[in-house]
Amino acid sequence: MERPSPEPRAAYAHFLEIPTRWADNDVYGHVNNTVYYSYFDTVVNHYLIGAGALDPAAGEVIGLVVETHCGYFSELSFPDRVVAGLRVVHIGNSSVRYEIGLFRNEETTTSALGYFIHVYVDRLNRRPTALPVPLRKAVEALQLN
Amino acid sequence: MERPSPEPRAAYAHFLEIPTRWADNDVYGHVNNTVYYSYFDTVVNHYLIGAGALDPAAGEVIGLVVETHCGYFSELSFPDRVVAGLRVVHIGNSSVRYEIGLFRNEETTTSALGYFIHVYVDRLNRRPTALPVPLRKAVEALQLN
Amino acid sequence: MERPSPEPRAAYAHFLEIPTRWADNDVYGHVNNTVYYSYFDTVVNHYLIGAGALDPAAGEVIGLVVETHCGYFSELSFPDRVVAGLRVVHIGNSSVRYEIGLFRNEETTTSALGYFIHVYVDRLNRRPTALPVPLRKAVEALQLN
Amino acid sequence: MERPSPEPRAAYAHFLEIPTRWADNDVYGHVNNTVYYSYFDTVVNHYLIGAGALDPAAGEVIGLVVETHCGYFSELSFPDRVVAGLRVVHIGNSSVRYEIGLFRNEETTTSALGYFIHVYVDRLNRRPTALPVPLRKAVEALQLN
Repeated sequence: MERPSPEPRAAYAHFLEIPTRWADNDVYGHVNNTVYYSYFDTVVNHYLIGAGALDPAAGEVIGLVVETHCGYFSELSFPDRVVAGLRVVHIGNSSVRYEIGLFRNEETTTSALGYFIHVYVDRLNRRPTALPVPLRKAVEALQLN
Repeated sequence: MERPSPEPRAAYAHFLEIPTRWADNDVYGHVNNTVYYSYFDTVVNHYLIGAGALDPAAGEVIGLVVETHCGYFSELSFPDRVVAGLRVVHIGNSSVRYEIGLFRNEETTTSALGYFIHVYVDRLNRRPTALPVPLRKAVEALQLN
Repeated sequence: MERPSPEPRAAYAHFLEIPTRWADNDVYGHVNNTVYYSYFDTVVNHYLIGAGALDPAAGEVIGLVVETHCGYFSELSFPDRVVAGLRVVHIGNSSVRYEIGLFRNEETTTSALGYFIHVYVDRLNRRPTALPVPLRKAVEALQLN
Repeated sequence: MERPSPEPRAAYAHFLEIPTRWADNDVYGHVNNTVYYSYFDTVVNHYLIGAGALDPAAGEVIGLVVETHCGYFSELSFPDRVVAGLRVVHIGNSSVRYEIGLFRNEETTTSALGYFIHVYVDRLNRRPTALPVPLRKAVEALQLN
């Protein structure tokens, strides 16, 4: 079991600031491990909606999460501001692998590092579908080099 | 049962921007009613911590919530940004009544309106205590008139 | 401002056990004030779905929350089991006022007491609609004497 | 990227029933991906507290999460009851790897499968510590064969 190392901001293609909330902290006074994943799906879906590539209310294609992962390096705590960095490392016919790094306030290396795999499906029958062109373009723009 | 009316931004003394998150939305595609209260305790505690009036990890005095209320006028929905307005309308010996208005994006009247009553207690024995001076000053600064 | 008193189990018509979760606790080691409202909307909607009176995915009529309130008497804490008691105190043409009491483990009086007002609306245009008959019957069954 | 397969109940050593809540569902009408992790830390901590191996409020040793993972096979949705199965697959000097399977209602194979790695640390200085004997015994009891 080899743990990944923290990464710099340059390792990400897009950023979203996500302020912590009071209830993010658990009894140990730091952000609960589950809340990191809410930062992950916030940055992914915020990007896609902003790019016109996802319409959660009415679009024909929606993204279902099939696998997620997070490694935690150092604590986040309310009232920290989190900056979520986003990149795409794999684009399949119907799936996309996003990687997310979380930065605490002004820090330059990640406090946590995770991934998030979406399979895009038809809203009604929930079967995988080829990525629509606007979605493919939006995720290609998150690939580094 | 008389419902309160929406209010303008001028009815509040302090503001905090709280971006919505993907998981704030419930099955009806709008922010779930419970999440409004997480905006309430975020703006209250964020203000107090920023004013040096509350130290959740180590302070002798902590705020326990004894009563909360919310009226919902119009929907909020991810990816809206919420602006939480805060004022104080009653300062007792050991309690404070905060009122919070939530504004959607650039809107000028409240989407929701609530209150939040803190009783300040000794961290260890959890019995009410007179408001410490820095806390009293911090909440007095939130009174309009 | 007169605070309500704790109530016995006999003051409620229907009960649902809701176990606490680790992340329900906040930094003070007790269930966060916002989580009480998730118990409220769980007991209300669980009852309505079980009674065949609400279909959140496809029904023509859905319930929108217009007002909620909670008074907190004594602490709940993970791993407590919460028992939510439910009654209906007002049935209007399109709205219902539910009252909820939360009991900690085997305790016989409420730890918290709140209300929850639903307005039932057409799913598509979100305008108030008269209560459908199965819904009216379901909520009438929650009225005490 | 090889996906794990669903597993039977016999693959787990301990079980906890966790009813879904209304707000667990997101806009797509199924339990949000982040909520699965709240089931994970609920079953782990509930087991440890029940076994007398963890005292979150006052114990000298607490468990910090360093890595989590989840694979999602089929949907969960309110008002489903989730049964969380728990086993331990690795016990180090100061860390434990838990694996969790989530079963929907009476289903016999997992809807989701994940892991959760705790490092046990001194509460005050948050440095890793050897597993205390009661904790070691508690987690050894979760090893299969």
